[in-house]
Amino acid sequence: MEGELRGTEIIQEERVELRSPVLIEGLPGLGLVGNIVVTYLIRQLKAKRFASLYSPFFPYYVLSEKGKARLLRMEFYYARAGERDLLFLTGDCQPTTPEGQYNVASAILDFAKRHGVDLLITLGGFSGVDEARVMGAFTNVSLLERLKREGIEVDLSDNPIVGITGILLSIARFKGMEAICLLGETRGYAPSLKPAKNVLKVLSKLLGLEIDLREIDKQILRFDELKGKLEEIAKRELRRKEEEKLSYIS
Amino acid sequence: MEGELRGTEIIQEERVELRSPVLIEGLPGLGLVGNIVVTYLIRQLKAKRFASLYSPFFPYYVLSEKGKARLLRMEFYYARAGERDLLFLTGDCQPTTPEGQYNVASAILDFAKRHGVDLLITLGGFSGVDEARVMGAFTNVSLLERLKREGIEVDLSDNPIVGITGILLSIARFKGMEAICLLGETRGYAPSLKPAKNVLKVLSKLLGLEIDLREIDKQILRFDELKGKLEEIAKRELRRKEEEKLSYIS
Amino acid sequence: MEGELRGTEIIQEERVELRSPVLIEGLPGLGLVGNIVVTYLIRQLKAKRFASLYSPFFPYYVLSEKGKARLLRMEFYYARAGERDLLFLTGDCQPTTPEGQYNVASAILDFAKRHGVDLLITLGGFSGVDEARVMGAFTNVSLLERLKREGIEVDLSDNPIVGITGILLSIARFKGMEAICLLGETRGYAPSLKPAKNVLKVLSKLLGLEIDLREIDKQILRFDELKGKLEEIAKRELRRKEEEKLSYIS
Amino acid sequence: MEGELRGTEIIQEERVELRSPVLIEGLPGLGLVGNIVVTYLIRQLKAKRFASLYSPFFPYYVLSEKGKARLLRMEFYYARAGERDLLFLTGDCQPTTPEGQYNVASAILDFAKRHGVDLLITLGGFSGVDEARVMGAFTNVSLLERLKREGIEVDLSDNPIVGITGILLSIARFKGMEAICLLGETRGYAPSLKPAKNVLKVLSKLLGLEIDLREIDKQILRFDELKGKLEEIAKRELRRKEEEKLSYIS
Repeated sequence: MEGELRGTEIIQEERVELRSPVLIEGLPGLGLVGNIVVTYLIRQLKAKRFASLYSPFFPYYVLSEKGKARLLRMEFYYARAGERDLLFLTGDCQPTTPEGQYNVASAILDFAKRHGVDLLITLGGFSGVDEARVMGAFTNVSLLERLKREGIEVDLSDNPIVGITGILLSIARFKGMEAICLLGETRGYAPSLKPAKNVLKVLSKLLGLEIDLREIDKQILRFDELKGKLEEIAKRELRRKEEEKLSYIS
Repeated sequence: MEGELRGTEIIQEERVELRSPVLIEGLPGLGLVGNIVVTYLIRQLKAKRFASLYSPFFPYYVLSEKGKARLLRMEFYYARAGERDLLFLTGDCQPTTPEGQYNVASAILDFAKRHGVDLLITLGGFSGVDEARVMGAFTNVSLLERLKREGIEVDLSDNPIVGITGILLSIARFKGMEAICLLGETRGYAPSLKPAKNVLKVLSKLLGLEIDLREIDKQILRFDELKGKLEEIAKRELRRKEEEKLSYIS
Repeated sequence: MEGELRGTEIIQEERVELRSPVLIEGLPGLGLVGNIVVTYLIRQLKAKRFASLYSPFFPYYVLSEKGKARLLRMEFYYARAGERDLLFLTGDCQPTTPEGQYNVASAILDFAKRHGVDLLITLGGFSGVDEARVMGAFTNVSLLERLKREGIEVDLSDNPIVGITGILLSIARFKGMEAICLLGETRGYAPSLKPAKNVLKVLSKLLGLEIDLREIDKQILRFDELKGKLEEIAKRELRRKEEEKLSYIS
Repeated sequence: MEGELRGTEIIQEERVELRSPVLIEGLPGLGLVGNIVVTYLIRQLKAKRFASLYSPFFPYYVLSEKGKARLLRMEFYYARAGERDLLFLTGDCQPTTPEGQYNVASAILDFAKRHGVDLLITLGGFSGVDEARVMGAFTNVSLLERLKREGIEVDLSDNPIVGITGILLSIARFKGMEAICLLGETRGYAPSLKPAKNVLKVLSKLLGLEIDLREIDKQILRFDELKGKLEEIAKRELRRKEEEKLSYIS
């Protein structure tokens, strides 16, 4: 595990043989939607980390957990889950400049290509009020038709897609890959669990996978309960203050 | 269509043989003046796209239209319209830093030179109140005299020219090209249709082209009607609010 | 003493033979804690400067003292103080961008490695109210256990570590080094003398060194006296103003 | 006159043979002090331009004067004025980033060295209230003593020197040159004519040159007259407004 770290570097920790793998990206972004989906899949499918990406284009702080310090990084995982192996990309952050975004995206796709990836799925969120819809974007229209044949319905994105999710999607075809982007409608709260579940459902259909959704349903339930309690506390506090004010005036 | 995309890249989609071509730039800038002019000429002259420019110096989002996603880019078109072929450069954006501006401008001019371009015309807007004048700037004074001999009158720019329009203009002579910049006076509204028409008139004279201006006249008419209606609505709304206020007071 | 100075450069002013040296970093950061500690050790141990680091990633001003001007720089010192020689790194500033931080950190560690360093200790501050605790972070857990065996108690950092102190710590293992980070709790005042003393005590235990702390105790005393006087003046001023106000009203 | 313009480039327009030249820098900075001095000397000594420096680290606009457009640039002039030839460096701007400052400064000094320069004098302003003092900074103390022997008195700078004036001064010794920096005290008004005259007087003594100061005296006089008139107008306007207010109230 040595490197220069003056440019973006991917350090592979384990050699893997992959059968026509699909790469699924879920880096931090709007509402953390993509991040939640990919983290969930990694746990459900018991995916294993095999490579890490480091870059001087990441922000300049490091993380420490119980005294163990490490650089910000992105991580590649793999899982054997169907006819095609799955690669997952998740991580701590995105690059901070346009140059960094292009540089890191290019490094990711070169690495994926060396491992035989010809299909990329990038995941993220888009701003909305209902947390209901899933939007899709594609490198070419035939992908959309394939989705329709398989009974998958997505709205078609007409908006700019910001950050690494968009850059990866659009650079893919320069590297000879096809790519699909799935965006869950979110109010921007982090963590956006419901939007993540919506994306999970579309994604598992697309991959022909049975994903157990009970765990994310529990998380949504817990989150809603917690939210309810916090709102109750806030209301009581407000009432108390108004009463104080009244008694102070009178 | 493959590339590294770690630096600025021009990907040529069609091989073309050009007869002493002139390059006309109309990228997004003040009031979108240059952009409107070049888009108009591309449509009128049925110019054909033959190359695209991609750069990590562009902003880091991508566009999606009806689900079809693509990187921000600049585009080269060509048209056979007179003695000299015409090349057009238009696109989605400008680079975001000084280094990016110089880098992309240099790539554009190297590409143009390889295609035999020895005259560059850059188009843009300048801030004013009348939307009447067209200002010119030049790499050398003989160009100005040539314009005068052909009965073309422009004011002479005495102000800095910001962004890619200025950088291209001034780098041209380092690449052995002559260059003219035409700037339409604009109040900065986008789209600045009248300033664009003013520039179109000077430009077509300069190129010895008959350009049909009826289409842009229609657009101006529609725009003025729309503006009139919006102003009418705003006035009525204002009147209504004042009346409400009066009745509330009385 | 010549160089290109278009990239980060370390200029070695004296050749030194070092016995399994430890590198201790104390560059300017929160509360100047690390800086104070390393400057104190350099003076106490009569360490000698033998190299300077210059970088275009530093801020673009220069220092002048009594008319003698010089670039911003970092400086390497060495001292022979126990079984292992000590290297110190201190300086005027930190790089201003993520790229600069990674670039300079990498240059520092490559230089340290060429001199046989296999243990790095980085020093800094963390934000708190008590100025009592010292927090530690490590590249691997065995270091922590070694500390415990030697009776050294530190809290374990659970927070991000910002800037060169964190980047050096985390890049170290890519260069085949182990690293420890010690952070003194500071209210952010510069100079943070008490937090520096707390770190000094842990550090000298860790290095098996007897460091004379009387000098820093004197500095703390002087600083507290000065602070007391300034507060007294501020109080009197406040009282005077209130009295003026009263006499003005009455 | 061709170039790539993807990096900093110096384009030499005339070959010159120079006798042990001194380089004097006067780029735009605080109060434009250095710029005024060097422009004045160029005119007085009828110095001739022989090279221009272009850089992607300059801001991204271009200048146009009466329609003639050109890139931002720095310019080298030479004059034969005493035992040693004089080189002058002036220009439109400074680089916008630390990297740009180091890059351009290094290019300037490499160019100067190729022309035999071993002494650099950088000029600028420093913030003060009196517009009386001239401050000096040096790469080494022997220069200061040389000044004293020649009866030249300057205050010794104890403050940071910001921008290209400072960076050039401090990088000089890495290129094997000695350097002196002269800073005129300025209230920061541009143009700072009196501070420029103060620096001119010290500089001409230092160079053993007779510089005719009548022209700058005239400029100072005209500037003071103009300032007096503007202040008179401002006062009258203020009086008028107060009278209006009174008549409005009464």
